[in-house]
Amino acid sequence: MDDIVNVAKRRGFVYPSSEIYGGFANAWDYGPYGVLLKNNVKQAWWTDMVMKRSDIVGLDSSILMNPRVWEASGHLENFTDPLVDCKKCKKRFKGDDTDGKTCPECGGELTEARQFNMMFKTHAGPTEDTASMVYLRPETAQGIFVDFKTILDTTRNKLPFGVAQIGKSFRNEITPGNFTFRTREFEQFEIEYFVKSALEAKKVFDEWVKVRSEWYKGLGINSANLRLHEHPKSDLAHYAVTVTDIEYNFPFGFSELEGIANRGNYDLSQHEKFSGQELKYFDEETKTKILPFVVEPSGGVDRAVLAFLIDAYDNEKVEGEERIVLRFNPRLAPIKAAIFPLIKKEALVMRAKEIYHQLKEKYFVEYDESGTIGRRYRRQDEIGTPICITVDFDSLEDDSVTVRDRDSMKQKRIKISEIEEFLEKKLR
Amino acid sequence: MDDIVNVAKRRGFVYPSSEIYGGFANAWDYGPYGVLLKNNVKQAWWTDMVMKRSDIVGLDSSILMNPRVWEASGHLENFTDPLVDCKKCKKRFKGDDTDGKTCPECGGELTEARQFNMMFKTHAGPTEDTASMVYLRPETAQGIFVDFKTILDTTRNKLPFGVAQIGKSFRNEITPGNFTFRTREFEQFEIEYFVKSALEAKKVFDEWVKVRSEWYKGLGINSANLRLHEHPKSDLAHYAVTVTDIEYNFPFGFSELEGIANRGNYDLSQHEKFSGQELKYFDEETKTKILPFVVEPSGGVDRAVLAFLIDAYDNEKVEGEERIVLRFNPRLAPIKAAIFPLIKKEALVMRAKEIYHQLKEKYFVEYDESGTIGRRYRRQDEIGTPICITVDFDSLEDDSVTVRDRDSMKQKRIKISEIEEFLEKKLR
Repeated sequence: MDDIVNVAKRRGFVYPSSEIYGGFANAWDYGPYGVLLKNNVKQAWWTDMVMKRSDIVGLDSSILMNPRVWEASGHLENFTDPLVDCKKCKKRFKGDDTDGKTCPECGGELTEARQFNMMFKTHAGPTEDTASMVYLRPETAQGIFVDFKTILDTTRNKLPFGVAQIGKSFRNEITPGNFTFRTREFEQFEIEYFVKSALEAKKVFDEWVKVRSEWYKGLGINSANLRLHEHPKSDLAHYAVTVTDIEYNFPFGFSELEGIANRGNYDLSQHEKFSGQELKYFDEETKTKILPFVVEPSGGVDRAVLAFLIDAYDNEKVEGEERIVLRFNPRLAPIKAAIFPLIKKEALVMRAKEIYHQLKEKYFVEYDESGTIGRRYRRQDEIGTPICITVDFDSLEDDSVTVRDRDSMKQKRIKISEIEEFLEKKLR
Repeated sequence: MDDIVNVAKRRGFVYPSSEIYGGFANAWDYGPYGVLLKNNVKQAWWTDMVMKRSDIVGLDSSILMNPRVWEASGHLENFTDPLVDCKKCKKRFKGDDTDGKTCPECGGELTEARQFNMMFKTHAGPTEDTASMVYLRPETAQGIFVDFKTILDTTRNKLPFGVAQIGKSFRNEITPGNFTFRTREFEQFEIEYFVKSALEAKKVFDEWVKVRSEWYKGLGINSANLRLHEHPKSDLAHYAVTVTDIEYNFPFGFSELEGIANRGNYDLSQHEKFSGQELKYFDEETKTKILPFVVEPSGGVDRAVLAFLIDAYDNEKVEGEERIVLRFNPRLAPIKAAIFPLIKKEALVMRAKEIYHQLKEKYFVEYDESGTIGRRYRRQDEIGTPICITVDFDSLEDDSVTVRDRDSMKQKRIKISEIEEFLEKKLR
């Protein structure tokens, strides 16, 4: 894990937030390459789950919602962690992290566990009282449930269909940690997939477990690093019928990458009850009103980025020297190609810049003329750039360039006029 | 404005947040077409300002930061609005909205104005005391300033260069309003452009006012609806040397779409002072250390979306009937093309679906077979789809389709094999 944290910091992927002030509570910022990687992960999800499918539409709902939403969803009552205090040193711990009797730090006596709600609270408007209290959403899902009827009324979707959303959520975790794995502020990609019956939900649940597992594999995650974990009934959240996690083999052990939950019709029925609004779907086939059932594939963007980063990381010996390389799927690579003049001669520089500017109209690419070619290759390897393009003296004669592949390190000559097509194919 | 709010709701662009609970404090959700439009606006900005330029890199920093950041930036002290209370009816008002003496609602006596900080406060961790107090960022800019040195150290940028960021910010506005124009939760696209000297900042400032104005025009905003507003010195925020707003002619009058600010080196010097860290740039040319000066083009994503929506909105009479059309620039249109079978005959349906599925691999497109062709055109006009493609009986013979243009309503025949190229050109 240290290797990952180091390369992530050193190469501009992930920085500790507010680092000049000593950091802040396990929060992280995505640097110039990190934001490109994260955008590509989100873009791949949106393209594959929304654009290419005919049965899913998007949504972008607010982080701050009417607080009644969290009463209805059960978060106000149930979204809690048990906390204990040490009577001697006054430190506070998550109940699960202690033996329940003695303080893990000073050995003092602990208080009884109290339930601590993990939603962040704030106040909207100028007064700070109960009436103005609002919450930072702990999941994007409720925005979808609350807007479900409006989406039905303003689009022409028929069941089964899903609503997809990417956005920030916040959980006041007592013990965040493991780099970007568990943070108080995080980004989710969630789909709520609505179907007509509990029976259909069961079937669709299995399909989603498969679709989502394949998605990670299709973008380069090694199958051996993925496994499914079915939650035992006793562990289920208050809303869930069944939950299966897709787990990734993080350096700290197999842990949740994405959860697929069969939520039954719990959420919609709660919102019907609390809002007094009917949220049913009129089924043309049976001429009856249905309160849809829901299957939810809910992934963490930051966890996905971390898994892609870890899985791509490779450290090998090449001709006696260490080579660090991020073997990203080309769709996810922050920089798609780097263009070099072999040496810093004006004719080569000019031709290389021409190619660079042409590619830059369509792709994130880099130009580099400093240091040896070998060093420039290594620099691109470390940020996972799939191909490097070198302009040499022959290029001026034969209008060709040398293209070097990140993974095989093999080189070949191609025509300058064919670079775009070559790159296009590589990125598909 | 009512027309815009109506079409936005009815056609799935923008919904009131938490509407089934009576809404929430002027918060809005982006529906299925709205999220596509908003994504396209952000994508266009990111493509034009980051990808295509060689002098700008991206960043994605946290919303929750070390609270010292807001001491240094001056927000804790200066980011305030004056508030007054009515002694009789107990209502609270923004000082600017009253005459300062009598309550605008009941005529009662008002209190003296008090300064109210517009940052949302919350607590990180299990205790709710001053030590755990954190703020929701009121601007994305400070994330860039705080990470400036790390970006310098981990990339190979030389001055002048900029750092760009898209993200949510929060301001506890006393009187939000005008649809999505002023909301407590909003998205920004900001660039902090760093240069070597105050003199250079002055020059670069003028360039950015031009670049950003041209960007809006290039994406379809009518020049007549844009104007520049230079802030008088007396109105400037605590950090600013000069500020020019790009204003758009909203239905409620010309108002700020984007602000371009010359922030001097105020922010970096404050963060040096408060963090004790040196944030200077070593200038290879003069072999001196420089604290860079900053020019900030800071736009509101929601305001940009609103302006593009309003500017695109058209309501005309066609053959005696009303036609509502959103004349979006094709890059921004949520749906790029709609594919119809002329009538619901199997052979036509099959051919149309084939084209639909082929295009869906690359674009957001829709398939529609319900109602008359005329009604289907109108439906697409209302969501701003640039072209409609109809498969008719001739198509089965000549492998051609009718393509209908949203703006001119003109139709022409093209080969099915040429549709992708036609669309590609249209979207450029």
